[in-house]
Amino acid sequence: MPTTMSLAVKLHFTSTTHLGNSTKTTSLQSLSAKFRPTPISHFNPLTSALYKPRMSNFPKSKSSSFVIKSSLIEPDGGALVDLVVPESLRAAKTVEAESMPKVRLTKIDLEWVHVLSEGWASPLRGFMREDEYLQSLHFNFLRMKDGSIVNMSLPIVLAIDDTTKERIGSSSNVGLVGPSGDLIGFLRSIEIYKHNKEERIARTWGTTAPGLPYVEEVITPAGNWLIGGDLEVLKPIKYHDGLDHYRLSPKQLREEFDRRNADAVFAFQLRNPVHNGHALLMNDTRRRLLEMGFKNPVLLLHPLGGFTKADDVPLDVRMQQHSKVLEDEVLDPETTIVAIFPSPMHYAGPTEVQWHAKARINAGANFYIVGRDPAGMGHPTEKRDLYDPDHGKKVLSMAPGLGKLNILPFRVVAYDTVAKKMEFFDPSRAKDFLFISGTKMRTYARNGENPPDGFMCPGGWKVLVKYYQSLQAEEATQQPATVSS
Amino acid sequence: MPTTMSLAVKLHFTSTTHLGNSTKTTSLQSLSAKFRPTPISHFNPLTSALYKPRMSNFPKSKSSSFVIKSSLIEPDGGALVDLVVPESLRAAKTVEAESMPKVRLTKIDLEWVHVLSEGWASPLRGFMREDEYLQSLHFNFLRMKDGSIVNMSLPIVLAIDDTTKERIGSSSNVGLVGPSGDLIGFLRSIEIYKHNKEERIARTWGTTAPGLPYVEEVITPAGNWLIGGDLEVLKPIKYHDGLDHYRLSPKQLREEFDRRNADAVFAFQLRNPVHNGHALLMNDTRRRLLEMGFKNPVLLLHPLGGFTKADDVPLDVRMQQHSKVLEDEVLDPETTIVAIFPSPMHYAGPTEVQWHAKARINAGANFYIVGRDPAGMGHPTEKRDLYDPDHGKKVLSMAPGLGKLNILPFRVVAYDTVAKKMEFFDPSRAKDFLFISGTKMRTYARNGENPPDGFMCPGGWKVLVKYYQSLQAEEATQQPATVSS
Repeated sequence: MPTTMSLAVKLHFTSTTHLGNSTKTTSLQSLSAKFRPTPISHFNPLTSALYKPRMSNFPKSKSSSFVIKSSLIEPDGGALVDLVVPESLRAAKTVEAESMPKVRLTKIDLEWVHVLSEGWASPLRGFMREDEYLQSLHFNFLRMKDGSIVNMSLPIVLAIDDTTKERIGSSSNVGLVGPSGDLIGFLRSIEIYKHNKEERIARTWGTTAPGLPYVEEVITPAGNWLIGGDLEVLKPIKYHDGLDHYRLSPKQLREEFDRRNADAVFAFQLRNPVHNGHALLMNDTRRRLLEMGFKNPVLLLHPLGGFTKADDVPLDVRMQQHSKVLEDEVLDPETTIVAIFPSPMHYAGPTEVQWHAKARINAGANFYIVGRDPAGMGHPTEKRDLYDPDHGKKVLSMAPGLGKLNILPFRVVAYDTVAKKMEFFDPSRAKDFLFISGTKMRTYARNGENPPDGFMCPGGWKVLVKYYQSLQAEEATQQPATVSS
Repeated sequence: MPTTMSLAVKLHFTSTTHLGNSTKTTSLQSLSAKFRPTPISHFNPLTSALYKPRMSNFPKSKSSSFVIKSSLIEPDGGALVDLVVPESLRAAKTVEAESMPKVRLTKIDLEWVHVLSEGWASPLRGFMREDEYLQSLHFNFLRMKDGSIVNMSLPIVLAIDDTTKERIGSSSNVGLVGPSGDLIGFLRSIEIYKHNKEERIARTWGTTAPGLPYVEEVITPAGNWLIGGDLEVLKPIKYHDGLDHYRLSPKQLREEFDRRNADAVFAFQLRNPVHNGHALLMNDTRRRLLEMGFKNPVLLLHPLGGFTKADDVPLDVRMQQHSKVLEDEVLDPETTIVAIFPSPMHYAGPTEVQWHAKARINAGANFYIVGRDPAGMGHPTEKRDLYDPDHGKKVLSMAPGLGKLNILPFRVVAYDTVAKKMEFFDPSRAKDFLFISGTKMRTYARNGENPPDGFMCPGGWKVLVKYYQSLQAEEATQQPATVSS
């Protein structure tokens, strides 16, 4: 529970807040005001959104006796959406869905069905109809019936081609068939509208340059129509890849946070191996939350598990690597939950980071750690970052509907060659620090070289070396034989 | 004042409203609920925004005695921004500005200075700093200090090149110099940030295709930096083109509405000549507002006066044409105010129509008429409209910060070959109707042919014919002589 104790503590995190024409910095302590026992339904998402009260507005002593629970942060829209048909109705609903015209899902469509069915996108109850699509595309939020808003920065849509549209005809419901032919669920009260790919891409990514991974994989080959409607899924989505036990739904995560009596949940989104720099940030966050008076802050280490681009480390390797990080106790297993976030990756920078944060609200997180250039990548055709590395955290801090989440931008971490460990970058002795990029890390692993001591725990590093060496072996096998002259 | 009288009236206008997953249609009468004497400052722009109360929620009899005035709609942010230096301070401020590093404005930059200085973009007080730019680009709104939001869909920014940036150095203020070298004003507490043109274009237009008029004219040649700051203008912006008397500021318009005792102001944005179809819509709107119980609805006929693309009819010709329409009493001069809206045109469809509507709130309009494909144009490289023609009114009806404005989407008007006049299109006798496109109209005018009787008042038509003939004469002069073999 927040106490005045924390007021004397020097903080690393700052939260950038937009106040008219000026930018103010709010210290982490001041965020504790968020934990007053205000029922979330009284929150005005607009007035409360960015205007985190400054410290001077707080009561200096706190004698209230409320209990902080992880469930203090309500899911968007007030209740977690669950679109899985109850077992008792499954047989009847299956028969019903079998009679509907069918839409065939791609692997990535199915990932979105998974995301929707478990309520990560709460209060969205299915693929977007046009009104939702337009709000998402133009404003990054959806307005609810009661006038409140929820963040929704990525269009969650299902594309169909002309033939499928014709086959659907005037039906109001369609069955959804998975990539392997099994009946997955159905959409009710459908709406079919035009899929203007160019506009969708431009407004989502801020570029239409060729080579955006999600665009090439998903949008370019997709049909010219979008179909929205209320989704129902016949049974929970499973992948049978040995990782399903990591795929905790928002409901399961909330139960786990409660079971552990978490009084703060801080989420860390990642799609890369965890090095000691990440660990430093996460451990430092926990330390600071403890200093603020929280008794049991729990870390949600939450790797993204859906579509990623070809040169990212595959999910199974990352999960092995994350296991080692916990085994080696770089992160404390007692206060860390590792789970898979089932969303596909857009690499859409400031637009996508809002989705990453919003989904974690639904999973019960009330603190979100955001780094440099979140969800960013290199520009596909120019030699520069696609996004300004600072825009992600700036846009996130100003995003509609995310006011109830505490955004924690993190300081730069680099390898300190003197202390021989990952440390917060100190500009006064910049020459002592080494920045180890993803490319550099991959080069080490590929060549079987070790990175500097203290960059990553040895167990985790071994997983990566093994992966990159298997990749090289595979590449070698696939090379056509060459004959030297 | 709204009365129950109007309940029996068949209405032409409908307003599309987003209610969660379903779309409801609200009749114009129901909008009268907006005119209950709620002080606008008590309006919650979010809860009130789209959820216009349905008719059944209204008191059936109204006995209130409040007086409706045009000033019932407050400018965004509560007060109209006026950035023109008071005359008493002009000399001192001029001396001050002369000592600052200078930024040279283009003709179109100066149009934006004009727009900002008169408060069309209230509460914006100058060219956008990065926080404002990012909110505009990603969310189409700005959040104020009190947590309320105002619509702001177009980035209003000033670009500078590397040399200018270097010249400014660490100065916090810059002087602004007009295209002809005169000192216009200055920006205080400046902020310089990167001008990512590709991202700006993609997010504003939903395309990066070559051939967008504003992009080619303004953005492509502009510098790689944007400079934001608080604007002050040394004296009102004038063009000395014989049309300045039409350039009424929002303050002047509000004074004029009050002088005429307007109890409703309905704005019609246009950048084309007025034909009788437009006139039908405007007159029909007035009739319906009268039927609703308003005593003196005033039309703001508000042609856009800033940058337009080369093949649009030039402003001076349009103003002549509009004069004739009033002279011929196609529109009633007693209840119509013709004025120039000084903004440049983006041709950015659903994004820009929000700007067009928002600026008219600041000028005192509480009704806004929106047509098919507002601010749209043909795709510059593909054979299709750049925007879905319905998206403009849909996006406008859902746009953040525009809830206090009554959006009036209009029905399709076409030439009725039986009645020999412009009429609301009746699909039951579609074959009787003729659609006269802008291209068709220009062909008539260019060939000196008359359009069908009743398409446009003769006086207005003559203005167009004269213009297109002068254009042809000019073209003929510019053609190199050809020798036939």
